[in-house]
Amino acid sequence: MPLLVWSACSLLLCSFFAVSAPAKSYQIERLEPANWWAGMQHSQLQLLVYGKDIAQLTPGLSYHGVSLTGVERTANPNYLFVNLSLAADVQPGDIALHFSLNGETLLSHSYPLLQRREASAKRLGFNPADVIYLLTPDRFANGNPANDNMPGMHEQANRNNEHGRHGGDLAGMQNALPYIADMGFTAIWPTPLTENNQSAYSYHGYAATDLYNIDARFGTNSQYRDFVAAANSKGIKVIQDIILNHIGSEHWWLKDLPDNNWLNNQSFLTSTAFIGTNHNRSTVQDPYASLVDSTQFTDGWFVDTMPDLNQRHPLLATYLIQNSIWWVEYANLAGIREDTYSYADKAFLSEWARRIMLEYPNFNIVGEEWSPNPLIVSYWQRGKQNRDDYVSHTPSMLDFPLYDALLKALISEESWNGGWISLYEMLSNDHVYADPFNLVTFEGNHDTARIFSLLNEDMNLYRMAISYLLTMRGIPQLFYGTEIAMQSLKVRDDGKVRADFPGGWAGDKVNAFSGNGLNSTQKSAQQLVKALLNWRKTASAIHSGKLMHFAPDNGTYTYFRYNDSQTVMVVMNKQLQPVALDLARFNEVLPQGKNATEVITGKNIKLDKQLTVPARGTLVLDIR
Amino acid sequence: MPLLVWSACSLLLCSFFAVSAPAKSYQIERLEPANWWAGMQHSQLQLLVYGKDIAQLTPGLSYHGVSLTGVERTANPNYLFVNLSLAADVQPGDIALHFSLNGETLLSHSYPLLQRREASAKRLGFNPADVIYLLTPDRFANGNPANDNMPGMHEQANRNNEHGRHGGDLAGMQNALPYIADMGFTAIWPTPLTENNQSAYSYHGYAATDLYNIDARFGTNSQYRDFVAAANSKGIKVIQDIILNHIGSEHWWLKDLPDNNWLNNQSFLTSTAFIGTNHNRSTVQDPYASLVDSTQFTDGWFVDTMPDLNQRHPLLATYLIQNSIWWVEYANLAGIREDTYSYADKAFLSEWARRIMLEYPNFNIVGEEWSPNPLIVSYWQRGKQNRDDYVSHTPSMLDFPLYDALLKALISEESWNGGWISLYEMLSNDHVYADPFNLVTFEGNHDTARIFSLLNEDMNLYRMAISYLLTMRGIPQLFYGTEIAMQSLKVRDDGKVRADFPGGWAGDKVNAFSGNGLNSTQKSAQQLVKALLNWRKTASAIHSGKLMHFAPDNGTYTYFRYNDSQTVMVVMNKQLQPVALDLARFNEVLPQGKNATEVITGKNIKLDKQLTVPARGTLVLDIR
Repeated sequence: MPLLVWSACSLLLCSFFAVSAPAKSYQIERLEPANWWAGMQHSQLQLLVYGKDIAQLTPGLSYHGVSLTGVERTANPNYLFVNLSLAADVQPGDIALHFSLNGETLLSHSYPLLQRREASAKRLGFNPADVIYLLTPDRFANGNPANDNMPGMHEQANRNNEHGRHGGDLAGMQNALPYIADMGFTAIWPTPLTENNQSAYSYHGYAATDLYNIDARFGTNSQYRDFVAAANSKGIKVIQDIILNHIGSEHWWLKDLPDNNWLNNQSFLTSTAFIGTNHNRSTVQDPYASLVDSTQFTDGWFVDTMPDLNQRHPLLATYLIQNSIWWVEYANLAGIREDTYSYADKAFLSEWARRIMLEYPNFNIVGEEWSPNPLIVSYWQRGKQNRDDYVSHTPSMLDFPLYDALLKALISEESWNGGWISLYEMLSNDHVYADPFNLVTFEGNHDTARIFSLLNEDMNLYRMAISYLLTMRGIPQLFYGTEIAMQSLKVRDDGKVRADFPGGWAGDKVNAFSGNGLNSTQKSAQQLVKALLNWRKTASAIHSGKLMHFAPDNGTYTYFRYNDSQTVMVVMNKQLQPVALDLARFNEVLPQGKNATEVITGKNIKLDKQLTVPARGTLVLDIR
Repeated sequence: MPLLVWSACSLLLCSFFAVSAPAKSYQIERLEPANWWAGMQHSQLQLLVYGKDIAQLTPGLSYHGVSLTGVERTANPNYLFVNLSLAADVQPGDIALHFSLNGETLLSHSYPLLQRREASAKRLGFNPADVIYLLTPDRFANGNPANDNMPGMHEQANRNNEHGRHGGDLAGMQNALPYIADMGFTAIWPTPLTENNQSAYSYHGYAATDLYNIDARFGTNSQYRDFVAAANSKGIKVIQDIILNHIGSEHWWLKDLPDNNWLNNQSFLTSTAFIGTNHNRSTVQDPYASLVDSTQFTDGWFVDTMPDLNQRHPLLATYLIQNSIWWVEYANLAGIREDTYSYADKAFLSEWARRIMLEYPNFNIVGEEWSPNPLIVSYWQRGKQNRDDYVSHTPSMLDFPLYDALLKALISEESWNGGWISLYEMLSNDHVYADPFNLVTFEGNHDTARIFSLLNEDMNLYRMAISYLLTMRGIPQLFYGTEIAMQSLKVRDDGKVRADFPGGWAGDKVNAFSGNGLNSTQKSAQQLVKALLNWRKTASAIHSGKLMHFAPDNGTYTYFRYNDSQTVMVVMNKQLQPVALDLARFNEVLPQGKNATEVITGKNIKLDKQLTVPARGTLVLDIR
């Protein structure tokens, strides 16, 4: 992997050359974050200033309520880090920054301190009343073909390459908002939209080359902000996908790294000795783990095109924290999804989430820890009493263990240790979580095979999976296309799983937005999802009710969500015959003398002594 | 299931009849415990006195340091519970108990208060320096054919019935002590020896009909005590298998139950509505469990011939606690193995173990919780900080999760989620245990298939399993016959798994004690076990050393046990080719410039830059 690197020189030597050099001009090539806001909780702000030999200059400013508290330099003279302190009552305005050498101001920069949106700090994050629509922007809808190929961006659009860019963009997402809202989703999580100017696989977005700019092939920063506003106006929250662990190998830093230890295993850049992560996330809590393994887990690179960030570097840590907060404030986000969570430094992760939650106490952040083991996932959730006293501030995690168990339960035969019992027992592990109701549950994502395919294209099992997800505790997330039962291989194949959403491109023969061309299975799936989602919006027992489940029996699994005003009873029957349930078993939770409506069909169901569940059937009963 | 039951009569009515009846004689049919000891920590003692209409009498006594603090009666007039308080300085001797009616003494009973063995309270329980030999007494060795069939005992010996009694006994076990000691075992756990006078399946011992007497077909109480003394003299501790959850349907209580609620679901005795346990042990911690399920788990019967004890009954609770302590003190035990642990009432279990550990602070108790989930098993171990604040006093649990993972690791192909990684990851969960080093690990037991068969009779895998068990943290337990690679079906088949140990019966053509007739595989297995066990006795790094393991790599799994004086390195290679390990990877723990001896072969091995592990090979290196 050829990468440009800078030749290290000690700060003293560089200074010596600078002093002895003839008079020269300086330029600020980058200054990040490009703005900040007045009235944030955290009073400190650190600016990264980048320019040739910029470290030779001394910054200064004069602004009421803003003081310059320090300047930090690294081994690379082209970087200067300026520490500011902002008073609680500082007023918005432009801060005049100046940079001088030997008392002479050589550069000036007007730095905007903006007014925050009203109640910005009180924003409500995504929560169990929401259902999240996860989409891969490049593959969802191409609203603006004019930005498919952009000057300076390496990869060109090519719909024939399943690992290439297809042209989906913010405009496409914005056009689809009526559809998404109509379906009943109340939150959108697009996979990363920041610039990924990589030469290949740039469509997936997980190899950022600029953390402060939206990829031009998706749109502009302000178009992103407009998209969020448009979504909000339809009652849809937006969650940004953020990657703290790594960047793309074409990130601008790689051409002139800010410091010697900006990356983990930075020596790889000048050698061929690639050190990849071992993916051994169990080392985090393992009392017997070797240091060599635990270090390789966090410091090994994900792949050779994704340099691994060293979040133990205080300047990088601050950069990443400010970057996340900047996006929340700039774009008006309701949440963050953090990628490859445990691969980053854990002390940093704690501080990162603490800082975000300090600014937005009602916000939500969900981390991705891809493990079927609740002991591993629960470690990272806020409030968990960990054995090693590790404290997390991240409120939510993706519920991989329940995803895994749901699939196993649906696919495996009923037995003493297969079928429903595996799902029932996995849920019983919830005592290990600090807040299981705030986990994000899902039926699949951009890294898994399609659920409809995994369930052998069995519509009865699909109905069980969707019904379970939308009535169980947690914040459900569906992957775009699941609502029309999109298919894939059964093994992971990113290109196939992230296929284009039908109707997202001009000329598509099938259009899932309008319904044109959908087959009966797809229509039936779409109706099911729409019915459940729109009903769920009104179901307080699902949003904040309690949960009681009953041990699987006779091929059926029954549980209840309930509060004072509503009881939801869910029964799934994997048998090939109808099963009659004796309702007396549920006396603890089943209210007497109330009406039940089956949510999917709208039928009234009498709750007498017995309840008959159809063969391979699912009943979602709303009892009030 | 036909069972004799007593017709309930209220205490008042019975008294009325007694008063109006002509003068009658009374008799003590049972008085339990038959003796107690001076100088126990707990000062209270409760005697169960059983005899026709005995509740009509009033007990009394006069003994320095013993006071009668109360008398308790139940719905059954044939039971009287006498509460005594023993002073800390009470002297051994015979307590003269008398029982009177209207001031007239009608019965007398001399109750022995015995002297304890010296340092009885300080006895050391089984611990990680030990290796336990689990055996099924009826199937191990028949030392005394004269007791194969005994008067009054329903089931006769019949070696042709694999579910019947075969004649093994205490005498056989005692004869085998030299063999067991020579092999290197330091503890024996026989499956239950108490009377099981059931009409069928009585050999397994888990359906007690008398909790205070050894089954006559195994020997007498004093023979049991002699066996323990003989074992102790050979450096072998004895662990008693105790069942708190249930008794046998032919237990004498069943003919005249002590109280209305002595059993759970006692009504089954007079009806046909059998309520079995649902085995849903997850209900114990499940935040969403229904009461109907969690109650059925503990209160449902294991099978219809094993009435489920209601340990919430205070008189029964005290009876069971005293019974366990009585056996420890009487027979001089070094440990208790408690059967079907979680099926009993959990508040009772806590108190039961607390009382035992109060008497013997260095004792050990291991509970059986048959679950592959460490969250479930760890809940019951002393010191665990549970979410629901449940406090256990049981120091050890059987490590079913590691057993499960070991088998999976050995049988499955190496992949990102199969093979060694499943064992490595299971061990990493040890942070969930309060004291993982005190868990009892095992390679199989009377309820599993034979390990040699489960490992496809592959001697290389068998060597890995045995080497792992005997060097890993924990207190290893081997099932009798494992040392000669005994076979079974791969699915559970109790009769086949509990086959007679060759040489245990006169005339056996194969004799594992002498080695006569063993084939080369059996001899090789026996040599392996013997070599490892006898080496292990001297290996302080295994008894109390630390543990570090390295992520599986290239089909190999490497770990270390180490302290200041010894390092043990274990490497197992599942590849079909030899693998050369780069020893630099282990620098954190591998001492430099020391000699290594391979424990099984006795060869010296040079630890230079590389270590070559043979194809499908296991190396256990003792480095000092």
